[in-house]
Formats: sequence, structure tokens, C-alpha cells
Amino acid sequence: MTSNGQSIGQLRHEPRVLLGPGPSNVHPRVFQAMTSPILGYLDPDFLAVMDDSMELLRHLFQTKNEVAITLPGTGMSGMEASICNVVEPGDEVIVGIHGFFGQRMAEIVERHGGTAIRVEVDFGDVVQVSQIADALDQHPDAKMVGVVHGETSSGVGQPLSELGDLVRSRDKLFLVDTVCSLGGSDIRVDEFNIDICYSGGQKCIGGPAGIACITLNDRAMSLIESRTKSVDTWYLDLALIRKYWFDDRAYHHTAPGPMVFALREALRMIQEEGLQERFARHQRCGDLLKKELTGMGLELFGDPAHRLPMLTCVLIPDGVDDAVVRKRLLDEYRIEIVGGFGPLKGKAWRIGLMGYSCQERHVHYLIAALREILGR
Amino acid sequence: MTSNGQSIGQLRHEPRVLLGPGPSNVHPRVFQAMTSPILGYLDPDFLAVMDDSMELLRHLFQTKNEVAITLPGTGMSGMEASICNVVEPGDEVIVGIHGFFGQRMAEIVERHGGTAIRVEVDFGDVVQVSQIADALDQHPDAKMVGVVHGETSSGVGQPLSELGDLVRSRDKLFLVDTVCSLGGSDIRVDEFNIDICYSGGQKCIGGPAGIACITLNDRAMSLIESRTKSVDTWYLDLALIRKYWFDDRAYHHTAPGPMVFALREALRMIQEEGLQERFARHQRCGDLLKKELTGMGLELFGDPAHRLPMLTCVLIPDGVDDAVVRKRLLDEYRIEIVGGFGPLKGKAWRIGLMGYSCQERHVHYLIAALREILGR
Repeated sequence: MTSNGQSIGQLRHEPRVLLGPGPSNVHPRVFQAMTSPILGYLDPDFLAVMDDSMELLRHLFQTKNEVAITLPGTGMSGMEASICNVVEPGDEVIVGIHGFFGQRMAEIVERHGGTAIRVEVDFGDVVQVSQIADALDQHPDAKMVGVVHGETSSGVGQPLSELGDLVRSRDKLFLVDTVCSLGGSDIRVDEFNIDICYSGGQKCIGGPAGIACITLNDRAMSLIESRTKSVDTWYLDLALIRKYWFDDRAYHHTAPGPMVFALREALRMIQEEGLQERFARHQRCGDLLKKELTGMGLELFGDPAHRLPMLTCVLIPDGVDDAVVRKRLLDEYRIEIVGGFGPLKGKAWRIGLMGYSCQERHVHYLIAALREILGR
Repeated sequence: MTSNGQSIGQLRHEPRVLLGPGPSNVHPRVFQAMTSPILGYLDPDFLAVMDDSMELLRHLFQTKNEVAITLPGTGMSGMEASICNVVEPGDEVIVGIHGFFGQRMAEIVERHGGTAIRVEVDFGDVVQVSQIADALDQHPDAKMVGVVHGETSSGVGQPLSELGDLVRSRDKLFLVDTVCSLGGSDIRVDEFNIDICYSGGQKCIGGPAGIACITLNDRAMSLIESRTKSVDTWYLDLALIRKYWFDDRAYHHTAPGPMVFALREALRMIQEEGLQERFARHQRCGDLLKKELTGMGLELFGDPAHRLPMLTCVLIPDGVDDAVVRKRLLDEYRIEIVGGFGPLKGKAWRIGLMGYSCQERHVHYLIAALREILGR
């Protein structure tokens, strides 16, 4: 009995078809791995699991980086770790902003004592390479350029390849958030000259929420390890976390074993499917969804040249009540889609097709449900 | 196939009897809850799970505090959150140190720009109330006094009640780390005048590693919400996290659903067992272990008046090889115990009896194995 005298019962909620911006559904294999027997954080079998995870993460990030590890937190812990380890007080960081998560990146730079140089475009557009070049001209001492690849808030994806060339040519660090897109888009960390890249488990990777993954190349790691001042955040200090993942195996935190097991299995499924096949699946399902939505007379949001496959932002037709539709989808169909953010609040729906949720049958089911509810 | 051309197989490790300082074994009910269908972070059923968790946490913390929530990280995220939200640059924090985790608390205070006033005793002793009183006399502007209750590094528990009275009488915040002990010791947050208290899922609570829980009273929350400068760490900003747990339900991070489900079930099991019955079980098993170890002629470490029930630190007899014994326990018996820390490295074993691992049968099994290996 709790303090209010009532007993809290066992969980009994029904499954959902999760078509929001994450969490997504996970394959039963991922759940099975999650409940593998618990291991101590220095058990030889657990150290092998960590090594496997690194190998599988290098494959997913398309990198030869030594450091390709998990972090004991959500995708946002990846954003914070990327910034707090690099930024020392007074450092300038250029942040290309095309939505909510870019804003957050700039905010975190400032929390850690840095100066965020904001290069901002409208929601739904992408940042131009020339804009970042101008900012670099004006701020030649900037230490890093950061962008969000897949903006979950707008459904638009930032092109990376040319931007990476530019940033490397100016000898700055290039930081890319791929929380929304890794595992669903062709993110080539080494080829795109990305120095720091992170993601979260619960979107296109097909794992659970609560675990992040990150890769850093030697340029980034040596800069971090030559800091003059300690990182202001102990929990996400990558120099300490690195020691736990490599030869020293020095205790930093008690690894979230079930999350690591689950992520490893999700990564194994990515390896089995093949990266290109997986990206094609996301593209195919995303294209189908967009075709079906426009076929119903709905209008898509964002620059058509850069719409994401895994997250579609669609405008809510005039006279349709956002909350009522989403409630009916959830209550009657057990489908989750999510509302708009910031300038799109109440004006758009965000529909995700990520990881195991990314299935053609889910598109057909959602469209059937929407046709019923909207009467179209 | 990975980049080295080898395929990484499915997990196939055997179960352990986890008798280290955590993670501990979890009951099958906890695993079952962990694989409940995934819910979106604003799904009404998930919001109800959060409300249940708060109610169950208040019961466990023995508090009427409104804020009794989980954090998306390991127990150490609780330590970091407790400190980074309170400490502004230049603030003094008195830290009572009787082992490794107290040292870490002081280090984290300094990382966030505070000054740690270290009140240090030898490993194995506890901090005296008079020592903290002296430090408060010398540092009348100190903002907070922090101590670790159960020092996993030494097996000793810091008395809290008198210390809490002292700290409250001086109108400072009282911060207590109960990562090792909550769920196994009688920690009365309100009665002991504790303002901030945190723990981790994987020890006496009987849940998984990777989720922390924390409670703060109104004194602590109003101090945090009246800060002049933003918290330097966005990920653990409690004012933002609070908005997600209460009326606003404002998005902060994607909740680690499986961890929250699992912790909720572990907390339900605590409620069913009854707090006093659970503490008595930990005491009974800890006493039995200590009796059996001394009966074998081994010597216990630490102040006999303050040894923890859930973590026993025992000295390794002369001529016995630490690593060999632990390897044989793990390989031949699938039992994990853990070595000493800091000054006890190579000189002691740390044996945990926490949560679901805390069973008399585990004591008998471990003692039988040790008798075989040590030939005693």
C-alpha cells in the first residue's frame, strides 16, 4: 500500500504501433536480449559485449574511429557529451539551426560557458554551406561547427558532405546530431569528415530509449584529452568514459547492462539487414507515406528537396482538431503519431517510420485509420 | 559482417549469482515489466506509470516530497544532478568523506565551480557530527552538507539522524547519497531532515542499472528554481526535468521506458514486501554472511559499529591471490564478488547482498564455494 492507501497494480497496457518521432517499436529479439542474465560491469563476458558493440557501432557509423561507444543516457546525453567535452569557457561554436534541436544545441553550448554563433534558417529549410562559410570568415577562432542532421521538429534533413569538406578545410571540428536518422540514412562519418557524431537507441537503430551512442575521431579525442580545465560535467566526461571502454577498464559508472544488451542486438539486426538495404527500406516507406498523404489531399511541410524518409511532417487540414484526431488514433487504433513543435504546434503532425516501426504495413494501417477519422 | 569480416553472434552467457556491489540479480517480474509494450513519452498510460513511480518512490524514500522521480542515467547521474543543480560558481559545500564515493562527491562539486570543504576520515570509519559542526563554524556561508550513506568502497554506513538535525539547525541543505543502501536500510528522508536524496536502480532496490531515483523537498527545489545562472548541465537540469514529471508535461528527453517499467515493478515488490521486513532481510543475510566469514577465520574491515548489512568488506588472508579466487568463483561457481578499491585494492573483497540477490541461500552457496577454494 502506498501513502494514499491504494495499491498500484501490474502493468497492463496494450501494444501500440509507434509512428511518432521515437520511441519506436522494437523487434522481439531486442527484448529477448534485454533480459539476458545480468552481468557485472567488469565481467569478462560483459567486456566482450562492449567490444562487440564498438565493432557494430563502427559499422553503423561507417567509421574506422577507435572510439565508437555507448553512453548511459538518452540521445540527448550524446548532445551534451559532444558539447561539454569540447567547449571550454569563452570558446566559440558555430551552430547551424534549422529547427528545435539546433536551438537546443546552441543553448547547451552557452550553458557550458561557450559562445554560440547561431546561423539560423526558417523551420523547414536547411542551412546553406555559404552561410556557414560566412560565419567561419567572421569567427575565425571558432572551435567547432555543429548541425543537426535529421530535424525531428521539421522533418527536414541537413546535407552533410559539402559542409564537412568546408569545416575540415578550415580545420574546425564538425559535430553532427544523427539522433533521428542514424540507421535510416546514409551517414558516412569518415567520408563526410564528421569529427563527432551521436545518436539515440530508440529511433532508426531499433533499440530502446535510454542509451546513446557516440563516435569521435582522434582529432576530437586529442583535443578533449588536452583540455586545460576539467570538463564541468563528471557524468559525461569522455576521457573517463573512454578509460572504461578500453585497456584500463577503469570503473566510471555501473553500465546499464540491459540497455547495452538490447542495443547490441539491434545493431546485429542492422548488420544482418545490410546498411544500404536498410536505408532503402526507410526511403521506400517514407516515400509511400508521403504519396498516400498527398493522395488524401494533405500538404507536406518543409523543403521538398530535403525531406527526411523517417520523419514526415504533414500540415493539419483546416477545421481538423489536432488533439481529437491523435486521441482517436491512439484510443481506437492504438497508433501513436505526434503533434508539431514550436511554430508547428497545433498545425502539423509528425509521423515517424523508424527502425522496426518502419514497415509498409504500418503505412497502410495508418492511412486507413486517418481516412476513417478524417472522412477522406 | 563487421569491418573485420567476422559476424557477431547472439548473446549466450550463463546466469550469475551477483554478489558484488551491484548490479544485483533481478526478479523475473522485473524483467517481465521491462519488456512491456513500449509507450510514447506522452502517452496517457506512460504518464500514469510516471505517477505510480512517484507514489512508490515517496513510499521508499519515506517522504511527503512532491518531487520523487527517476533520472535517465545511472546512480551517478543522481550525484551529479544533486550537485550541479544546487552549486553555483563560488559556493562552498561541506563534504563528509569516508571513502571513494565521498571523494567523488567533492570532485563533482569542484567541477561545477564550487569549493569542496573536505571533512575526511580514514577508510572504514565514519564522519563524526562534531567534525561537520566544526566545518560549519569555519564556513558559515556553506550552502550544503553532503555525505554518502553506504560507502560501497568500505562497507561502512554513515549515521544520518543527528547529522541531519545539525545541518537543518544551521539552515543548510543536507544531501545524502543512498545508492548502495536505499531499499536495504531504513533511510527516512523527512525524519532525518534530508533535503536531497538519490539512489540507483541496481542495488537494494532490485531493479536494473541505468536508472536513478531522486527526491528533493521544497527547500531544495525553491533554491534550485531561484538560481540566477542556468545549471551548467542541460541533461540533468532538474527544473526542466520537473516540468516533464508534473502538470506541464513539457518534453525534456525521451524517457527510457523499459527502465521506468522495470523500476516501477521493483518498487511494487518493495511495497509488497514491506519496508521494515525488507530491511530486516538485508540485516539478517548480512549478519549471517559476517558470521560465516569470521567463522572461517577471515577478518572483516571497517568500524564494527557501522558495518553495512548489504555490503561486507572482508580482508583477503595472507598468501591468497585475490584475482585467482575471484576468477575461480566466477568460472566454476558463476558467483561474482568484487575486489577492493583505493587503499583496499588487492587487500579486500566486497561482497554484496542487495535486493533480489540478498538471500540466505546465496550466503550458503558463496561460503561453500569459498571453503572449497580457500581450503578452509
